[in-house]
Amino acid sequence: MELQTLIDIVKEVSGLVAKSTSDFEIIEKDGVANIVTSSDIAVQEALISRLSALMPESQFLCEEEDVVYQEGKSTETSAVWIIDPIDGTANYARGIRECAISVGLQLNGLMELGVVYLPRTDECFSAQRGKGAWLNEKPIHVSSRNFANSIMCTAMCVYHKENAKVCSDIILETYMQSNDVRRFGAAAPELCYLANGNIELYFEYCLSPWDYAASLLILSEAGGYISNLQGKPLDPTKPSGVLAANTKENLARLVEIVSHHIKAS
Amino acid sequence: MELQTLIDIVKEVSGLVAKSTSDFEIIEKDGVANIVTSSDIAVQEALISRLSALMPESQFLCEEEDVVYQEGKSTETSAVWIIDPIDGTANYARGIRECAISVGLQLNGLMELGVVYLPRTDECFSAQRGKGAWLNEKPIHVSSRNFANSIMCTAMCVYHKENAKVCSDIILETYMQSNDVRRFGAAAPELCYLANGNIELYFEYCLSPWDYAASLLILSEAGGYISNLQGKPLDPTKPSGVLAANTKENLARLVEIVSHHIKAS
Repeated sequence: MELQTLIDIVKEVSGLVAKSTSDFEIIEKDGVANIVTSSDIAVQEALISRLSALMPESQFLCEEEDVVYQEGKSTETSAVWIIDPIDGTANYARGIRECAISVGLQLNGLMELGVVYLPRTDECFSAQRGKGAWLNEKPIHVSSRNFANSIMCTAMCVYHKENAKVCSDIILETYMQSNDVRRFGAAAPELCYLANGNIELYFEYCLSPWDYAASLLILSEAGGYISNLQGKPLDPTKPSGVLAANTKENLARLVEIVSHHIKAS
Repeated sequence: MELQTLIDIVKEVSGLVAKSTSDFEIIEKDGVANIVTSSDIAVQEALISRLSALMPESQFLCEEEDVVYQEGKSTETSAVWIIDPIDGTANYARGIRECAISVGLQLNGLMELGVVYLPRTDECFSAQRGKGAWLNEKPIHVSSRNFANSIMCTAMCVYHKENAKVCSDIILETYMQSNDVRRFGAAAPELCYLANGNIELYFEYCLSPWDYAASLLILSEAGGYISNLQGKPLDPTKPSGVLAANTKENLARLVEIVSHHIKAS
């Protein structure tokens, strides 16, 4: 599939995202921190339907179904779409602009295409393996800021607050050595802001595949670095802690800080 | 002065805010965390010039001059403009959209007018004492969410990192009792998002008057509550720690949490 075809599908499907916060229904999945809206479900169903029609062999790994692998298809050789219909659902439900449709395509174990589209700001981040990364039509690249000048986007493991203390300790240690922190409340846009040179560092204790699969490709193609909490490569079909940075050196320093708080597994 | 006149002036002056991050010069004021751009200075000078022409008795309390009280005028009876030409300068310099021109007018010791305008998103928050608060043309109001459902905007005292640990502790304790935290990186817009019902809680260890004077009026007129770290009223011409909430009960609970970490002065 062409990248532009995927971008067109994502933008078309974004028409299902309500403009007003009164135009959708909110369903609590697992306590107040984890919600799903009727929009999440509508967007996901539309994406699966459109992408399946174009690539009938496709398998799907999606937030609102967990796994929708289709029977009788090998996961190793076929195309796997990794989808978050709305990343940043809490923001979405509150009318906060940072929320995104995130769609990544993995082919034979490699991320091939990635699109992260923010319908409320009309920012479309995209990438194709080996070809580069873009914000709308413009090629993007990470910044060259050093660690002391860096801003980190982060969170405190909102679905598993038993990990909040260790997250807080890691954030504080990083903060004391860098410039500042941000938390916009949506992983996929934050990783894309890193790709776009707006921020330099990223730490989340645990993300699901659909939170970071598309952004992983966008960030890599923009010259950035991403790893698990031990500095090892990520498998974007699996949940994982995620570290990312604009440079190899900054990522190494982040891995080092994290190692003070989390034992290597 | 009419509120609409002030809105018109702020929007006109916002034309001096560069669209691209390559169109201004960055000057470090006090280490990497505290910068000023040529845009901050241009916006401030234009505001002082425009407002002085319309109200010659005006005095000014501005970020990029600290105090520009004019000689021979009493600060108690005259009009005091409290101005941050660009709140969120770090965001501004990095191309992050959350930054704002913040202008408040104090008359005889009371906040009378407040405008917080985000040029990159074209969001204009405004308020007039006793008349209400608006986002663009729409009246705004705080949300009714309870503490457990609340999101707090906050920071860790970026210009005085010796206070980062106590901020981190307060944030963590609040986080464990509420829904989540956000840090967009600019105080004035964050307090306006509280006024607009997007978030519910706010904590900063120390703000300057220009960071919160205009937003204080916008928040109060939108039905919210704001205080110093001990729950006492703020004097918006003085630096202070700031707590704010959508309800009296949520503010009281935030004051209680802070009291576990900071002794009453």
